[in-house]
Amino acid sequence: MPSEGEFDLIARLAPFLATSGEDLVVGHGDDAAVIDVDGRGVCLAVDVLVEDVHFLRAVSSMSDVGYKSVAVNCSDLAAMGATPSVALVGLCRPTDVSSADIQQLYEGMSEACERWGLRLVGGDTVAAQALAVSVTVMGDVAPEGVVRRSGARPGDHLLVVGSLGAAAAGLALYRATGEFDDDLLIAHRRPVARVAAGRTLADGGATAMIDVSDGFGADLTHVCQASGVGAVVEATALPAADGVAAVAKRLEVDPYTYIAGGGDDYALLAAVPAPAAPALATATGGVVVGEVIAGPPSATLRLPDGSTVDMAGMGWDHYGEERA
Amino acid sequence: MPSEGEFDLIARLAPFLATSGEDLVVGHGDDAAVIDVDGRGVCLAVDVLVEDVHFLRAVSSMSDVGYKSVAVNCSDLAAMGATPSVALVGLCRPTDVSSADIQQLYEGMSEACERWGLRLVGGDTVAAQALAVSVTVMGDVAPEGVVRRSGARPGDHLLVVGSLGAAAAGLALYRATGEFDDDLLIAHRRPVARVAAGRTLADGGATAMIDVSDGFGADLTHVCQASGVGAVVEATALPAADGVAAVAKRLEVDPYTYIAGGGDDYALLAAVPAPAAPALATATGGVVVGEVIAGPPSATLRLPDGSTVDMAGMGWDHYGEERA
Repeated sequence: MPSEGEFDLIARLAPFLATSGEDLVVGHGDDAAVIDVDGRGVCLAVDVLVEDVHFLRAVSSMSDVGYKSVAVNCSDLAAMGATPSVALVGLCRPTDVSSADIQQLYEGMSEACERWGLRLVGGDTVAAQALAVSVTVMGDVAPEGVVRRSGARPGDHLLVVGSLGAAAAGLALYRATGEFDDDLLIAHRRPVARVAAGRTLADGGATAMIDVSDGFGADLTHVCQASGVGAVVEATALPAADGVAAVAKRLEVDPYTYIAGGGDDYALLAAVPAPAAPALATATGGVVVGEVIAGPPSATLRLPDGSTVDMAGMGWDHYGEERA
Repeated sequence: MPSEGEFDLIARLAPFLATSGEDLVVGHGDDAAVIDVDGRGVCLAVDVLVEDVHFLRAVSSMSDVGYKSVAVNCSDLAAMGATPSVALVGLCRPTDVSSADIQQLYEGMSEACERWGLRLVGGDTVAAQALAVSVTVMGDVAPEGVVRRSGARPGDHLLVVGSLGAAAAGLALYRATGEFDDDLLIAHRRPVARVAAGRTLADGGATAMIDVSDGFGADLTHVCQASGVGAVVEATALPAADGVAAVAKRLEVDPYTYIAGGGDDYALLAAVPAPAAPALATATGGVVVGEVIAGPPSATLRLPDGSTVDMAGMGWDHYGEERA
């Protein structure tokens, strides 16, 4: 959920950003942009990973950072129903990063490219004070098959593909104790882009889709705002990753802090017509977690004890004090 | 000219970068990549501008930085014969950059987008320790009309569109004296992408093309290496920017340090068939500065006194000591 400062920034920048028009199928404000090139949809996303903001060298190897820099962009494309094809990298290199380090970073990018069928077609390495990796991924999608954030309708079911909370719980455990739980941290180090599931959901009539990167609650709120709908989610239905509950118990934290508010999950969240939900859940390995309702754009979590929480306050905010 | 460190890095990364194949018309190693999408060439470039490496806040306003971040990518596309269409930005934002600063940066990007006919279709702003702007520009070009660095042939004439040395001389003067010469510094702050000239040269049969960003000598050497040819350039023919000679005299520096070794010029350098050179020079406002010759890949500058210099050692090297 954007902070007041972030809302101010979004309002300031909106006049400069194109959202649609002519051959621009999807512009700013979704997971990726889509441009119509003679009837083919060219899909473009860019994500920047910054040291000590998005990764820690103590937790992620250079290869992990490279892998993740490609994976998170593939996840953006997956959320449009697109298939990634090529990647370009812009690398900010401080003096303490050796050529061998950069080679490992490229090895990681290359592994992710191989996994999701991309080619790395350009790279720009520049001197800098801090390590940052900016990756652009291009892909394709039929313009008429693009799934936006804005199409969810009351009565649609909400489907999640992938599990939630592992990255946040793994990082919280590391921060609190210095321990590495590799089974949890793999989600943070090497996220899985749900490209095939994204295509299946798009083909199956998904009305809205987003990749869960800011946290389930925050990203569902994005969908609600873009679609002008509400949503109710059953907490017990959320696909919590193995081991999250144990970390929450040990650190005496509400597990939904990680599951619904954690971020870095790279699960796919889709609204789908209710009749199609069971088959799409089976086809993608996803689970139905709740329902879209009419009403003001807000996402409600119904807890096991029957109480409800507005999820708008949950999730990653790059500028928020609580996560600085 | 890459340093030994940079050569080592290039060799390490080469195995991970695709240069051609299938629908990849141009991959890594040129100004931009070109992907064949159903017969249309989609051209992609990414450039990262980093504070204190590529710009100084004392010299460039936020608006200038935004403008330049788009212009340098348009210049890359121009060197392929492509026409830019959309831009995406990834912005690394340190805490001392305000929302008003970012707005100004976007205003500058927007001005450049308007000038060269692009739309800004996506932006990602992330917290970071240092200010860096990563811009991706997409454009289009007929796949058969793409001009690479590698096609220069002995006998071709070398054409330069734009002037040389202003940015380097302006920055040298500022560093030596603290003085701002706005007529020179405009080249550094708000470079001009030669998009129309690039198309004219491509349509007119240019055999090789590059944008002069690292310095004329270094970039001509890149063309010679990619094409497997030599080149001889008349120093007196080079289109030195007004005011460069005066700065060189004042700072007691060889003016060709700025003109042939400066960087940040964003002129276009093309090899063109000799018979076409006069008409292309007229059409683009360019000048013929020399000739492609058979022989080992090296670029020679013939000075007014008849002596010659290998230009390989001239020009910007991000990792070189002399410019650190």
